Amino acid sequence: MEEKKKRKREKAERIFFLNDPNLKTKVPIEYLSHKEKYEEAIRKACLVFQKVQQLQNEGKGGMDNFREILGGQLGSAILKDGHPLTLHYVMFIPTLMGQGISSNKRSGFKRDGITELGHGTFIRGLETTATYDPKTEEFVLNSPTLTSYKWWPGDVMGQSANYAIVVAQLYTQGKCHGIHPFIVQLRDEDTHEPLPGIKVGEIGCKLGMNSTNNGYLGFENVRIPRTNMLMKNNQVLPDGTYVQSPSSKLTYGTMIFVRVVLVQDAATYLKKAVTIATRYSAVRHQSQIKPDEPEPQIIDFITQQYKLFPYIATCFAFQYTASWLWDIYNNVTGELETGHLDNLPELHAASCVLKAVSSADAALGIETLRLACGGHGYMTSSNLPSTYGLVTAMCTYEGENTVLLLQTARYLIKIWQNKTNLQKLPTVRYLENSLYKNIPFEKSIEWIISALQQTAAGKIDIANRHILANESGVGKRTRMPGITLPLSCKLRQSWGLVLKQLLELYAVHTILRSTGDLLRFTNTLSKDVEVLQTWLEELLACIRPNAVGIVDRFRYARRSALVGF
Amino acid sequence: MEEKKKRKREKAERIFFLNDPNLKTKVPIEYLSHKEKYEEAIRKACLVFQKVQQLQNEGKGGMDNFREILGGQLGSAILKDGHPLTLHYVMFIPTLMGQGISSNKRSGFKRDGITELGHGTFIRGLETTATYDPKTEEFVLNSPTLTSYKWWPGDVMGQSANYAIVVAQLYTQGKCHGIHPFIVQLRDEDTHEPLPGIKVGEIGCKLGMNSTNNGYLGFENVRIPRTNMLMKNNQVLPDGTYVQSPSSKLTYGTMIFVRVVLVQDAATYLKKAVTIATRYSAVRHQSQIKPDEPEPQIIDFITQQYKLFPYIATCFAFQYTASWLWDIYNNVTGELETGHLDNLPELHAASCVLKAVSSADAALGIETLRLACGGHGYMTSSNLPSTYGLVTAMCTYEGENTVLLLQTARYLIKIWQNKTNLQKLPTVRYLENSLYKNIPFEKSIEWIISALQQTAAGKIDIANRHILANESGVGKRTRMPGITLPLSCKLRQSWGLVLKQLLELYAVHTILRSTGDLLRFTNTLSKDVEVLQTWLEELLACIRPNAVGIVDRFRYARRSALVGF
Repeated sequence: MEEKKKRKREKAERIFFLNDPNLKTKVPIEYLSHKEKYEEAIRKACLVFQKVQQLQNEGKGGMDNFREILGGQLGSAILKDGHPLTLHYVMFIPTLMGQGISSNKRSGFKRDGITELGHGTFIRGLETTATYDPKTEEFVLNSPTLTSYKWWPGDVMGQSANYAIVVAQLYTQGKCHGIHPFIVQLRDEDTHEPLPGIKVGEIGCKLGMNSTNNGYLGFENVRIPRTNMLMKNNQVLPDGTYVQSPSSKLTYGTMIFVRVVLVQDAATYLKKAVTIATRYSAVRHQSQIKPDEPEPQIIDFITQQYKLFPYIATCFAFQYTASWLWDIYNNVTGELETGHLDNLPELHAASCVLKAVSSADAALGIETLRLACGGHGYMTSSNLPSTYGLVTAMCTYEGENTVLLLQTARYLIKIWQNKTNLQKLPTVRYLENSLYKNIPFEKSIEWIISALQQTAAGKIDIANRHILANESGVGKRTRMPGITLPLSCKLRQSWGLVLKQLLELYAVHTILRSTGDLLRFTNTLSKDVEVLQTWLEELLACIRPNAVGIVDRFRYARRSALVGF
Repeated sequence: MEEKKKRKREKAERIFFLNDPNLKTKVPIEYLSHKEKYEEAIRKACLVFQKVQQLQNEGKGGMDNFREILGGQLGSAILKDGHPLTLHYVMFIPTLMGQGISSNKRSGFKRDGITELGHGTFIRGLETTATYDPKTEEFVLNSPTLTSYKWWPGDVMGQSANYAIVVAQLYTQGKCHGIHPFIVQLRDEDTHEPLPGIKVGEIGCKLGMNSTNNGYLGFENVRIPRTNMLMKNNQVLPDGTYVQSPSSKLTYGTMIFVRVVLVQDAATYLKKAVTIATRYSAVRHQSQIKPDEPEPQIIDFITQQYKLFPYIATCFAFQYTASWLWDIYNNVTGELETGHLDNLPELHAASCVLKAVSSADAALGIETLRLACGGHGYMTSSNLPSTYGLVTAMCTYEGENTVLLLQTARYLIKIWQNKTNLQKLPTVRYLENSLYKNIPFEKSIEWIISALQQTAAGKIDIANRHILANESGVGKRTRMPGITLPLSCKLRQSWGLVLKQLLELYAVHTILRSTGDLLRFTNTLSKDVEVLQTWLEELLACIRPNAVGIVDRFRYARRSALVGF
């Protein structure tokens, strides 16, 4: 955005939002009770929503993109512990519509309506059922188990929402057809009381985002009309016949969209934290280097610079990456509309890894920056704790980071095993000739990039060799049967042997955290590191059968009141 | 402690504490307002205090050590977001007395009474003054600046405490003698109102520990009797003559004591988190490896084991280290009493690094474990967020971790430069012959220990060579004069050049995070890593003059409402 437009926007933000006394903080939310926090957030969110609509109608202030306005700096200034209304209803939906994705498909992937107490990552395992009854042309919704209760749907479901999109296993004509989305009325529009068979409430306090009202939701024979199923992709006909959509790949687009947005969000939050910490470090003076000199600004200590400046640089890296990913996303979704799916796997892999890396690095960065502000960073008035609370949540939602990294790893292994056509894939093209390329060291960006590429190729190659040598992977491990834990687990080995394994595990894990130092200051070789890594995995397998028994010896579980189970 | 005694203790905990309905949580504290949180904590803390006193008087239940009872599992079960009374008045003081440290010395180093808004690490820079007036035989206390206000003194000072120990710069006969401790009455014992000239209140909400009532405290010509100075070490005579204690080294003991205790606390909190996460992982099922098999327990995934099991092992490492350090502490403080100070520097160095490493690793571990519980770990009901809140605070208080690491680094360099008598120092004896020892790799604990020793020696040697080559250290850097920040800082270079530096910094910082991979998968040499590290330091220096200007371009600081300045 050019400078003039920015200024116009900033002026509008000031006039219409920041200077509005009704949007100012009277009592900081952290002093309020949980209930008051939510009420205050709803009050502000409604006011913001009205204002934005009004401004849009009047064409004022360059307020032409909800998400850009409220998802960024302004939004987190007004509602610093999460947006109860704006996030999904004000930002996602208009932007998705802007992407030309029609109403039904969009609703089907409003992810917040999916998660259950027992299932988040593995959505095929959802337990809520929607069974079609052709006699009345209705679906009957049920929550057959405690774990089938919806858990997390936000941002207002706990106490406020009248309608929700619910993802459930579709049964018709005696057969399960997997998960599908349905619109369900939860509460009476007049009395606001839950409808019969609807069990709804708030899930409780969280590390952060306590201005949002995440809910639980269970069903007991709740009947909805057949037409409440969102049937853009798949359909159930009045007689109960299930008709499958020809293309299920199209549904990818929206999941990827959210991850693309999160890379931008990671940049936004990191910028906020790095601004606070840098300005604090310029104002804060401490210690005395020479007796006759004043105390220096702490920003002049290398140890402090080392904490701050790399994260200033990271903001730019994330920002440019987010823009790049946004462009790729638009290109690929444009291609999808015309039926070209070739570039979808690459976009999927890139968005998975970038969501995981940007959220994890932003969280690490914000904590580093917070700690760099000492005790002042521990106070909520620094805004750093709440910023961390928002970012660390990103590591878990919209695809848990470890799961996303495994998605990208799977893609890379596939590419590696089948190296044809790498030239067509810009993000992995370098893999074609990076393995042990051994470009002589030089102090340059070009060398660093090449070294990172060689490293990536080397690691993929090793991973691939391990997979080939051990095709069965996770499955190979002796797996214990599904268990109900006894109050206190007995060990399956002598305590002495267990302690020896724990000693080895601590030692191996510790030294593998310093592989770089190890290779520099001892005569360890790369193949020795592989031995250590294998050793670590052996130890994990040794400890597995005793893990619960070991922690039980800490005597917390025996006295569950101590951990608050 | 033997098994029988443990069981007796656990039974007493259950009967006297955990089963007491008055100590049970009616409304979880996170639902309460800030004010209610404190009131509830005070109510519980007083009740616990009475009960423990009663049990001690009756000699019941093996309740013979306050700290062991309340600092550990039981304490954090009853007051899970910090102890408003117990920590200092119930735990520290009795234990210190048990160590034979007399009342005056103890009070002088109740650290919480030291920190000011402007000074924490550099306590010689404290600004509060106590000026002796020989006419009335009183000290006159003043807070000459805003930054001289006491800030953080806990745990009940904000709203409750009637007395505090205040550390201030002592002036007598026109001369400053540095910081000394004074007992000061803050509030009227009957009305509980602050006394004239006392400005006291609570500092506000924090990331965690919101059951403690950290305060601020300022003075305006507050007069206290001469005898309120704690004069065990140094004295002011009635005529104003200052008499210095022959030994100031003795005061070390208590600072070290607190750090020794924190290593134990790190173990305790990590045990709690690892118990919660391990038991959760054994109960939680997710994903389907094979279509015909049930979903496995997530503890059976290597990725999950990798997050959990090393921290189970770490609990034992910390626990044994804490016990070892406790023994060393007792030995060395025993020697202090007889005037032998030889082993104090080694104990100081060991306690600094162990406090820093155990708090940082415990915090990292607890966050890793929390994230390993997915969304459930984000809920306060998992107890993981509050446990993290307590542990991350440990990284800052009682010696900020970076500062403590530098203390130990300084000791190591000193030892390295003067290698005589290493045999007398058990913790660093290995340095004598570890440098480039190059023991052939083998898969054994002995090799790992030796490799870590070689690594330590190699790193100390490099650091020492850098110091010798560049004696001036921090001071060498061009330092900006103390500044008042303008609202928006201008850059001192072209934006293009700044961006290039930021690009380089991101690249160098990123690759140095993966030194191990770099050395394994490229032909990088150890000396190349040194070049990269020097490059990083050069870039930090380049960015320093523009740091504030760069973050101002994020447009947060210009609109300070956005960050809540």
